[in-house]
Amino acid sequence: MERIRRNERMAALTKWLTESPNHIYTLSHFCDQFGAAKSTMSEDIDILRHVFETFGMGKLETVTGAAGGVRYRPCLSADATIAFVSDLCKELSTTTRVLPGGFLYLSDILSLHHLVSKMGIIIAQQFYDAEPDFVLTMETKGIPVALMTSQAMGLPLVIARRSSKVYEGSAVNINYVSGSSGHIETMSLSRRAVASGQRALIVDDFLKAGGTAKGMVDLMHEFNVEVVGTAFVMSTEKPVEKRIHGEKSLMIMDVDGDNPETLSVRPSEWILEMNQ
Amino acid sequence: MERIRRNERMAALTKWLTESPNHIYTLSHFCDQFGAAKSTMSEDIDILRHVFETFGMGKLETVTGAAGGVRYRPCLSADATIAFVSDLCKELSTTTRVLPGGFLYLSDILSLHHLVSKMGIIIAQQFYDAEPDFVLTMETKGIPVALMTSQAMGLPLVIARRSSKVYEGSAVNINYVSGSSGHIETMSLSRRAVASGQRALIVDDFLKAGGTAKGMVDLMHEFNVEVVGTAFVMSTEKPVEKRIHGEKSLMIMDVDGDNPETLSVRPSEWILEMNQ
Repeated sequence: MERIRRNERMAALTKWLTESPNHIYTLSHFCDQFGAAKSTMSEDIDILRHVFETFGMGKLETVTGAAGGVRYRPCLSADATIAFVSDLCKELSTTTRVLPGGFLYLSDILSLHHLVSKMGIIIAQQFYDAEPDFVLTMETKGIPVALMTSQAMGLPLVIARRSSKVYEGSAVNINYVSGSSGHIETMSLSRRAVASGQRALIVDDFLKAGGTAKGMVDLMHEFNVEVVGTAFVMSTEKPVEKRIHGEKSLMIMDVDGDNPETLSVRPSEWILEMNQ
Repeated sequence: MERIRRNERMAALTKWLTESPNHIYTLSHFCDQFGAAKSTMSEDIDILRHVFETFGMGKLETVTGAAGGVRYRPCLSADATIAFVSDLCKELSTTTRVLPGGFLYLSDILSLHHLVSKMGIIIAQQFYDAEPDFVLTMETKGIPVALMTSQAMGLPLVIARRSSKVYEGSAVNINYVSGSSGHIETMSLSRRAVASGQRALIVDDFLKAGGTAKGMVDLMHEFNVEVVGTAFVMSTEKPVEKRIHGEKSLMIMDVDGDNPETLSVRPSEWILEMNQ
């Protein structure tokens, strides 16, 4: 095999590490790939760590112990996070986005890969330490951001459905009270989707009264799964009392009835407090 | 600013290019980022192109003309594609996956980011030249693979719904005949989701008789949008006559009734013919 120069190793290492976030690679794995000595690879990783820091490209961490090695964690700096969420708020604060009933048109934003991938990284960063085993969302609009969160964390995504479908096999159904309508709705999850004793991170697009979110928490209890966190793209200011607590929302919106002139969308407190 | 060495530029360039597939960066953009001369950056890109080729990491292409520059296109080699799809077929050929009614349990596979991102690249590769403006899918199970296809192509994703929702605003609804059940169903898309004259690539998880797919094609005609391709993760062998034609499916499955013993899952012909 042709000898591979450091220049070339830098590019390949970056590609491999960044496309598998939170995956722990051993140094020997890379030594094998490049036919390089451990000391050389160790130097490579040190240079790479410095570059990632300099350009705000995420964190390269060394994990010690028997299963040790090096792992990449996507991160967005406090400044970049605040700038991104503030821009998003500005974009969403257009009165033409207000729909009858005081809803906000978000569907375009929620399916643009370059936006949801950043949202996913911001959410993931908050929950690396909580060590969830999977990300849970409820169909439909939260799926893209939940998928990107699961990618940033290196975890599987699990999707709860509105009703059990024939192609999901045997399922657990629960009924929950939709917070906004007060109606009883059904939520369903395939029996084989999760295992007892696991830890879940709930990610969804919108939090109003919290009925659906509470339903997801209850559903997890049916599976004997602990919920280690809840995150949303958008929360409404009202009602102030939600059915769940301790959630992390990227943005807060408020509107009086469906009068577009009263619309306000702002970054959450915890986002604004990041650079303090 | 501290002088940045080639080693370091290689890592940063790789990160930026690979995280924005199909985005055309001008050389001057990178010159500004690094405070480097054009000739230096040009050399950097040449080295990078070679590394990407050597390690099968996708293609770095130079685009000439007024809006020219360099762009990254994710690609999977023929061998890697065949190996990936074959492994997937093996994984899916387990009799415990057969559900009552002859359905196959796919939900886990369809929401694992490392699998759907590869599927997305394989599909994207087939349609770079067709130059679609967006990727269209129908909720729910196809969303992750469609999102990853849209990311690989650098395009927006548009999601059609089963019925119009209050938070989508004014919508176009069409009725279509579900191929498998023969029932009339409704499909809905927000008026503001796409523009007249655009080009769509349809991506979904499952193709049986093609009723839903035909519905998406009809929906696009209502918007005066041309469908430049259709791609699916899985097609059924039967019925042989589908309501749409020319689709690209990654895998073909067949099962007699719901007898698990008769299950077969195999890569499509066009996948197998890739290395000929």
